[in-house]
Amino acid sequence: MIYFDNAATTYPKPEVVYQAVNKCMREYCANPGRSGHKLSMEAGRVVLEARELLAELFGTKRSDNIIFGLNATDALNTAIKGLSNKGDHIITTSMEHNSVLRPLKQLESQEIETTIVRCSETGELNLAELEANIKSNTKMIITTHASNVTGTLMPIKEIGEIARRRKLLYIIDTAQTAGTYKLNVSDINVDVLTFTGHKGLMGPQGVGGFYIREGVALRQMREGGTGSSSDSLIQPEILPDKFESGTPNTPGIAGLAAGLKFIKEIGIEQIRKHEEEITSYFLKQLSEIDDIMVYGPQNMLKQAPVVALNIKTKTSAEVSFILDNQFDIATRPGLHCAPLAHQTIGTKGQGAVRFSFGYFNTVDEIDEAIRALKAIAKEECF
Amino acid sequence: MIYFDNAATTYPKPEVVYQAVNKCMREYCANPGRSGHKLSMEAGRVVLEARELLAELFGTKRSDNIIFGLNATDALNTAIKGLSNKGDHIITTSMEHNSVLRPLKQLESQEIETTIVRCSETGELNLAELEANIKSNTKMIITTHASNVTGTLMPIKEIGEIARRRKLLYIIDTAQTAGTYKLNVSDINVDVLTFTGHKGLMGPQGVGGFYIREGVALRQMREGGTGSSSDSLIQPEILPDKFESGTPNTPGIAGLAAGLKFIKEIGIEQIRKHEEEITSYFLKQLSEIDDIMVYGPQNMLKQAPVVALNIKTKTSAEVSFILDNQFDIATRPGLHCAPLAHQTIGTKGQGAVRFSFGYFNTVDEIDEAIRALKAIAKEECF
Repeated sequence: MIYFDNAATTYPKPEVVYQAVNKCMREYCANPGRSGHKLSMEAGRVVLEARELLAELFGTKRSDNIIFGLNATDALNTAIKGLSNKGDHIITTSMEHNSVLRPLKQLESQEIETTIVRCSETGELNLAELEANIKSNTKMIITTHASNVTGTLMPIKEIGEIARRRKLLYIIDTAQTAGTYKLNVSDINVDVLTFTGHKGLMGPQGVGGFYIREGVALRQMREGGTGSSSDSLIQPEILPDKFESGTPNTPGIAGLAAGLKFIKEIGIEQIRKHEEEITSYFLKQLSEIDDIMVYGPQNMLKQAPVVALNIKTKTSAEVSFILDNQFDIATRPGLHCAPLAHQTIGTKGQGAVRFSFGYFNTVDEIDEAIRALKAIAKEECF
Repeated sequence: MIYFDNAATTYPKPEVVYQAVNKCMREYCANPGRSGHKLSMEAGRVVLEARELLAELFGTKRSDNIIFGLNATDALNTAIKGLSNKGDHIITTSMEHNSVLRPLKQLESQEIETTIVRCSETGELNLAELEANIKSNTKMIITTHASNVTGTLMPIKEIGEIARRRKLLYIIDTAQTAGTYKLNVSDINVDVLTFTGHKGLMGPQGVGGFYIREGVALRQMREGGTGSSSDSLIQPEILPDKFESGTPNTPGIAGLAAGLKFIKEIGIEQIRKHEEEITSYFLKQLSEIDDIMVYGPQNMLKQAPVVALNIKTKTSAEVSFILDNQFDIATRPGLHCAPLAHQTIGTKGQGAVRFSFGYFNTVDEIDEAIRALKAIAKEECF
């Protein structure tokens, strides 16, 4: 199996991640931050280690401001709903995932206005258009860092500058970039940065979360046991407890810590360089095949290692099915939970076949994919 | 290490659970219900298997009505908040965990009234008192099945009958009982039954969820990508998708499926019998030691395998620390995130040392604990 579905979940993981999850499960999987016995202390230690590694990765010293939850969707719902009030206006882009668009749509029923700025056919955002949509009641801007359909990168530093200048909050969704792109919250004017553990951060599924800037007044989505201030019926305000009710996914967090250490060892620049090289190589080969339509910038300065394409008028589902069934190549067809992105790039009906690359993909695998695509384009397989 | 903190997280797990998590991580940890390639299909298959095993365990044929999330707290917040509206009145008991009490407290700020029925000193609920608190605007009753402090069982069948007769919703929190006690949603008049995977169900941390009765109008807490109706900005209404946005904890769910198969193989009656036997044995031995105060019913017909105790006026933290440090016995001191339960049993200041037993505990371990407690009571160790 050649796996090109890394934008959904990176696979495989580094060997150390498997080992860390297994060790946690077998040796110390008690409740962190609660009981206080040796197993519980060890569980607490590994959760703290993951928090500190993430803080370091995101360029902050405040590991308490790194919050763990279920996944990026969980984090985005917390951030979007916990910062919005009746009468507010929120701006986003047409390249967002449903994890941003659906919570915003839901808020409309609570008298919160939203504006979706339409991006170009390659998914690029016009900053002037973004700024022109700011109104007196605009509360925040929320954008992805990179589209999960075309890989198109958003100018997050420039958007952050606009937010700072216009006194708005800025939420960034880094599901497609954390672990591959340098993200320094001291350099970017970001209030909440959401992440997921199971993509570029190389951890297991079941862990996501966010960084929150100190002083940002965010309401929690869940109340419950935190192992702290147990005598109070009121949710504690201290971080990270305020946002971390209930038993966390300790084995998942242990695996994430191992993934973060792996990234630190290899170096984020090295990981990105490899992924950019194979993506560039793939784009170059694609450009030489007739009948293949490629979407997005097709330029590694402007996109993450994600490529969406179609072959003639074939449905994306058909192409992905043939790739899986006849060539043992895993891709993802359809709309990728981002309907407006497909509207933007003109593929709402057909969907697109998405190739998304990870650190463990190789040039040989790209060659195999190219051979397969050529065969499908020439109708040599059905 | 002797582990008596099973009410927090059961440990160890059956060997098959470790193997299932590891196999999932290494062999097929792609996104279930999304991409459609072989790895994704296999991930989807194991999630469906876990859903069907839970449906069978809870006595329903509707596996789509089994919903997965982060933990029991996540499920309880969804159920409590998603069923309540301004002006409603909700009844609960003083034996609840903060995962029930804190969301209810939070709702008070949204003009939702709550009544907390005080239980007896052993944690037992007076059904007449519960019913006497029903008012014209009462919307629902929410109770635990067993207290996480004293193990006291609530009469869930009778409460369900009251709810049915008075046309109220009933939510049951089974964090302490699912996997050990027979829970048949066809026999109990329950609208939402919340569970966690990492206690009696023998799965890993990071998975919890709920069963929802068909037709109950529950709002979701999160919107996002569901892999279904991707072209719509509106959260789909179909189950389980409505409540399962974002990538689930597939390895955790794979481990839970293995735990559920283990339970099915051993038999739930057999598991409970073993746990009741060692708890009875522990209670009997305790009754022969001077200076130990035991809380709760001290009767296995009335309690789950959880025992709270104190030694003279020693703080519970001190006793738990000595047990861990000098005897390698893991227990949990303090308030166990259930402040009103401690108020009810009279231990708000001192807390209590909680011994909670699991299927893998043995009589020999109980004997060791008894020896340790005797030594501490006689001041033979510090």
